[in-house]
Amino acid sequence: MSKEQQTQLDAILRQGGLDTAADVASVRAAFNALMAQIPVPADVLQKPTEIGGVDGIEVTIPGNESERVILYFHGGVYVVGSAATSVPLVSDLVRRTGVNALTLDYRLAPEHPYPAAVDDARAAYEALLAQGMDPGRIVLAGESAGGGLAVAVLLAAREAGLPMPSCAFLMSPYADLTLSGETLTERQSLDPILTPQGLRVRAPEYVAGADAADPLISPIFGDLSGLPPLLIQVGAHEILLSDSLRLAARAATADVVVTLDVTPGVPHVFQGYAGLLDEAAAALDRASDFVQAQLGYLPASVHSV
Amino acid sequence: MSKEQQTQLDAILRQGGLDTAADVASVRAAFNALMAQIPVPADVLQKPTEIGGVDGIEVTIPGNESERVILYFHGGVYVVGSAATSVPLVSDLVRRTGVNALTLDYRLAPEHPYPAAVDDARAAYEALLAQGMDPGRIVLAGESAGGGLAVAVLLAAREAGLPMPSCAFLMSPYADLTLSGETLTERQSLDPILTPQGLRVRAPEYVAGADAADPLISPIFGDLSGLPPLLIQVGAHEILLSDSLRLAARAATADVVVTLDVTPGVPHVFQGYAGLLDEAAAALDRASDFVQAQLGYLPASVHSV
Repeated sequence: MSKEQQTQLDAILRQGGLDTAADVASVRAAFNALMAQIPVPADVLQKPTEIGGVDGIEVTIPGNESERVILYFHGGVYVVGSAATSVPLVSDLVRRTGVNALTLDYRLAPEHPYPAAVDDARAAYEALLAQGMDPGRIVLAGESAGGGLAVAVLLAAREAGLPMPSCAFLMSPYADLTLSGETLTERQSLDPILTPQGLRVRAPEYVAGADAADPLISPIFGDLSGLPPLLIQVGAHEILLSDSLRLAARAATADVVVTLDVTPGVPHVFQGYAGLLDEAAAALDRASDFVQAQLGYLPASVHSV
Repeated sequence: MSKEQQTQLDAILRQGGLDTAADVASVRAAFNALMAQIPVPADVLQKPTEIGGVDGIEVTIPGNESERVILYFHGGVYVVGSAATSVPLVSDLVRRTGVNALTLDYRLAPEHPYPAAVDDARAAYEALLAQGMDPGRIVLAGESAGGGLAVAVLLAAREAGLPMPSCAFLMSPYADLTLSGETLTERQSLDPILTPQGLRVRAPEYVAGADAADPLISPIFGDLSGLPPLLIQVGAHEILLSDSLRLAARAATADVVVTLDVTPGVPHVFQGYAGLLDEAAAALDRASDFVQAQLGYLPASVHSV
């Protein structure tokens, strides 16, 4: 069924016609409307919260333990999206891992360009530590820009001498805002969601006066040594495929435990369509195995160095 | 314990002093002596066999089912090694997967340069098919040159219109005999086994008059589309790290299911030291999960598109 599912999802996304190059208000409204269509199961609890001075949503499922937490960063090219738009995907992750999440409303560009998002994300991580949370019980996770942001937070935390969390799970990370990836043009006809034009419009809104090659903006240019184990999942039908390939290579040569997990035929952040696509559910199951292993639930086979 | 284990293994390998640039007879003898030190458990049965006109060794453990098979290609830069030298590692794989293996004595250079190895490996694969074996019940696996050879066989089989096996498991594949990988020099001081000099001496013996960039010699330059799911495992302390990174990237952009699994701090084909190194056993467990999923034992989370 998977080929049919892939074709159907591709058609839905192309009809959705999210124009990431449109004006900020329009693209935000369109993205919110798109994500609001994805149902959240009734047993998932959402509670507005604040951590380190940053708003967010606690996503919990009754019965989950509360000793561990996933600190989650939503996608949306640093300009659109919100903690709320991430809740369906975060819920799936919470259910599979058995670990509750806190998804963050970090400030967005163009109103708040770099380093606002990194500052907010780091403040939230520091606040978890300040609450006495064992860093080994914290997982960072994010999708698209949120995946890039998760790596930026790791770099910022390392520079600040903070302990590393247990691991990071990155879905289709947007990790090169210089937009130099080969697949940006090579995969253009295959990607039903993102366009090079859209990214070219949006990237300067976040980069503003900074250097787009700054590792806190584009982690593929950073020294990734000392980072905790990374799981990078990516679909092959996306213009940001190169970001994942280069991020994995960069991590590997920095002696970081890294797994790159490529699923062909599927779009950007395909894990968000677990109800439609077998590959999405399977990928989230693999991610859950990784997260649980890093948190010490599964000592054996999954990377847990 | 792992850091200690890594340091100890590194010292053992450096003392071992395998000089891959030495004359052919010496390096073969040294490699055979090194590998003969690794014990094979008493319950592992080894039976000389012949398939498709090529010699090999059947490696079985009583109680394993016989409906499926791992066709295995040993390492040794296409010049050294043998089916026998692969038996300790193959045994570990057979035990974990529950699937018996056939490890092949493909012909070696310089006596038999390219395409002898590819011809032999393909002949063995074709013979399995000719015996009526379901290709979905065949796994290709290999280490180092054997990993590159496994991909070459997939390409040759695809060109010949043969069906693909279920998957391929590649350990530290040697997949670029043009020796253009960045880590060839960058990782030189970290690699306790291979040297750029050694590879520069040995590669021409296999390439002989052919083009080193031929995809059947150096699969990183090939069109990998249509290949079955690949698991690539590599250590970060090896000069051939680039081969794995580029092979994974090449597979990803060819819409192949691919998982790249990087373990820091460990050498070339570290899975061969499962008795000494926790990471080796853990990597083989992950590989076993992958193989079993592709063979239909584990339908859920592991890539099984």
